[in-house]
Amino acid sequence: MCVTTQIFTLTTDFGLKDPYVAEMKAAILCLYPAAQIIDITHDVNKYDIRAGAYVLASAASYFPTGTIHIAVVDPGVGSQRRPLIIQTEQGFFVGPDNGLLILAAKKQGVKEVRDITSRHLMLHQVSSTFHGRDVFAPAAAHLASGVRLEEFGPVVEDVVEPAFAKVTKSENRVDGEVLYVDDFGNVITNIDERNLDYSKGVIIQIELPHSKLQLKFSKTYADVKPQQPLLLIGSQGYLEIAVNQGNAANQLQAKPGDKISLTHT
Amino acid sequence: MCVTTQIFTLTTDFGLKDPYVAEMKAAILCLYPAAQIIDITHDVNKYDIRAGAYVLASAASYFPTGTIHIAVVDPGVGSQRRPLIIQTEQGFFVGPDNGLLILAAKKQGVKEVRDITSRHLMLHQVSSTFHGRDVFAPAAAHLASGVRLEEFGPVVEDVVEPAFAKVTKSENRVDGEVLYVDDFGNVITNIDERNLDYSKGVIIQIELPHSKLQLKFSKTYADVKPQQPLLLIGSQGYLEIAVNQGNAANQLQAKPGDKISLTHT
Amino acid sequence: MCVTTQIFTLTTDFGLKDPYVAEMKAAILCLYPAAQIIDITHDVNKYDIRAGAYVLASAASYFPTGTIHIAVVDPGVGSQRRPLIIQTEQGFFVGPDNGLLILAAKKQGVKEVRDITSRHLMLHQVSSTFHGRDVFAPAAAHLASGVRLEEFGPVVEDVVEPAFAKVTKSENRVDGEVLYVDDFGNVITNIDERNLDYSKGVIIQIELPHSKLQLKFSKTYADVKPQQPLLLIGSQGYLEIAVNQGNAANQLQAKPGDKISLTHT
Repeated sequence: MCVTTQIFTLTTDFGLKDPYVAEMKAAILCLYPAAQIIDITHDVNKYDIRAGAYVLASAASYFPTGTIHIAVVDPGVGSQRRPLIIQTEQGFFVGPDNGLLILAAKKQGVKEVRDITSRHLMLHQVSSTFHGRDVFAPAAAHLASGVRLEEFGPVVEDVVEPAFAKVTKSENRVDGEVLYVDDFGNVITNIDERNLDYSKGVIIQIELPHSKLQLKFSKTYADVKPQQPLLLIGSQGYLEIAVNQGNAANQLQAKPGDKISLTHT
Repeated sequence: MCVTTQIFTLTTDFGLKDPYVAEMKAAILCLYPAAQIIDITHDVNKYDIRAGAYVLASAASYFPTGTIHIAVVDPGVGSQRRPLIIQTEQGFFVGPDNGLLILAAKKQGVKEVRDITSRHLMLHQVSSTFHGRDVFAPAAAHLASGVRLEEFGPVVEDVVEPAFAKVTKSENRVDGEVLYVDDFGNVITNIDERNLDYSKGVIIQIELPHSKLQLKFSKTYADVKPQQPLLLIGSQGYLEIAVNQGNAANQLQAKPGDKISLTHT
Repeated sequence: MCVTTQIFTLTTDFGLKDPYVAEMKAAILCLYPAAQIIDITHDVNKYDIRAGAYVLASAASYFPTGTIHIAVVDPGVGSQRRPLIIQTEQGFFVGPDNGLLILAAKKQGVKEVRDITSRHLMLHQVSSTFHGRDVFAPAAAHLASGVRLEEFGPVVEDVVEPAFAKVTKSENRVDGEVLYVDDFGNVITNIDERNLDYSKGVIIQIELPHSKLQLKFSKTYADVKPQQPLLLIGSQGYLEIAVNQGNAANQLQAKPGDKISLTHT
């Protein structure tokens, strides 16, 4: 957390072969020439909102206060889904109202959400297929230039909240979802540190669709024997289940979208 | 269109695994430390000048006035092809005289073309295999630093103009070429909005090597029924033939390099 | 070689799909908002220290004096390998003490090496698995902000020097190693221009594990007939064996890690 000059980040499923990412950057630079633009990734699997939401939520909180994050994984472009600006305690998120932004935004603390409806804050010709360049990038640049939040459009109270952004807590139970399985087979959930208040020695019962297990929190992989499972807060701030020198997703038959519940007695 | 600090773009077929792209950026930064360098793409298929020309022409016009675009897809490096600077109404293009630049440059309006021959404006050791780093990047940086166009070398009157950059118009006919087939099978031609003056209701006869069809202009894919073809100006400003929820290139047996003619009666 | 504002480069095996590269950039920007950050590559093959060392050594010397190069190809993260800052005649290298940095650093001339041990110059929470973000990026940013070398930790006298960084010379013999085979099959060695003082006409005897040959130095590929081998200093400054319009690695059965010796009589 720190204060700095204006940084923008981009997260999309556009890939790097086509001109689309460069056109979004051009649209920012036309309105805000001194922009410091950082790519989070453009290699989200096409239309995989959950994976995009995870990568964005992982990276966003490392950026300085005031950073404007633009994200586009948008199967509904051209339909009636709303273009949003979300103001959080740490910065801003700009993108479609399809769940892509809300995981990251909730991690930072949501302050206010606006629907982008002001036509004069978009490119003068808006194509029906490329809101990244024509709506989101200009909105982000205008935001950086000092346009106030209320000028973009009306307040939104009913942001789309997909299952993968929902965590429910009761006294001794937390329910969430598997968000991502990384290259090592680590099973990463949507349950972040702030949803957990277990003291480290407590035994946790974990239930997944195809497996049940009992674990204590570990600090690093080496805390357990090779091929043994462990529970830890990963370097991205989310609860994950790993297997020391093994593949947890295979061992537990777990995949993105699976429900997961944690209980302790 | 807007005015800004100095932006450079890069378009190459170098890929991102090797050190080449970074070396070009280093060569720019040595001469122009405050450069804002934006990648258009480095994933053009090796030696595919037509595809490189298309991506460059698509992206370039979204950048601010004065942007310097460097492009290198250069099967003829080390041969006698000339290194060029092209000044347009909107900015500059620097790269080989093999057709890579001219499609984008013509879209912006060509003002003047120079052959880069001044040895003192190149790296002091010019390798015979890497003009991107040793000739084009330094030329672009010197241009940004205020070196005048005439100092780089003599005027060029006979820029190489490949078939894919040529569009011919007569009273009721336009002849062009298929430039690119994108991931969705959309058939993108080299005929841009400025070559077309049909009113929207007119029926256009389209002739490709393996198919003939008659279409009116549409505004979006959803204007026609699923699996039906349509004619539209794509988000990159070029005429394209698409099939709603289908693959136009397959349906029409069309591929890059095919001749296309449009007539109306 | 030139003087400029603060440039950082990044070289990793992280790929561009995951949030890791963006998190390293965020860590730099938090401490040094005006950073000019340039990617060398993030596509080094996972854990391939030799390939990472080659790409870094190739690109680094083209950057302005004072550039800070951060590199992370780090199979030993979490173990006892030391995090290093190496000051050279041209700039700085920050990364693990596993041989990744030393090839590039020696090419520039090593001045001083420090072990990064000062806890307050790292992120306040250091994960055991992500030193790129938590140790190397903050160290580089602090260095740029004026923290003196001695504040990071003690001097290191015994930097890990892998075989691929070692070249031995005697009166008429140089011994080195094959560093990299590029896409064209060129066999690139770790022997750089400075290790060679042969006049151009001398006949060199080359010994590789599976082949012996005698060659004079050439200036470009076209100096020999098609399918004939040649010896040259490549555009990266290293001795390489190529075959004009052919594949030297296949013809000589050479691969990274092979010993190579050059003698002349």
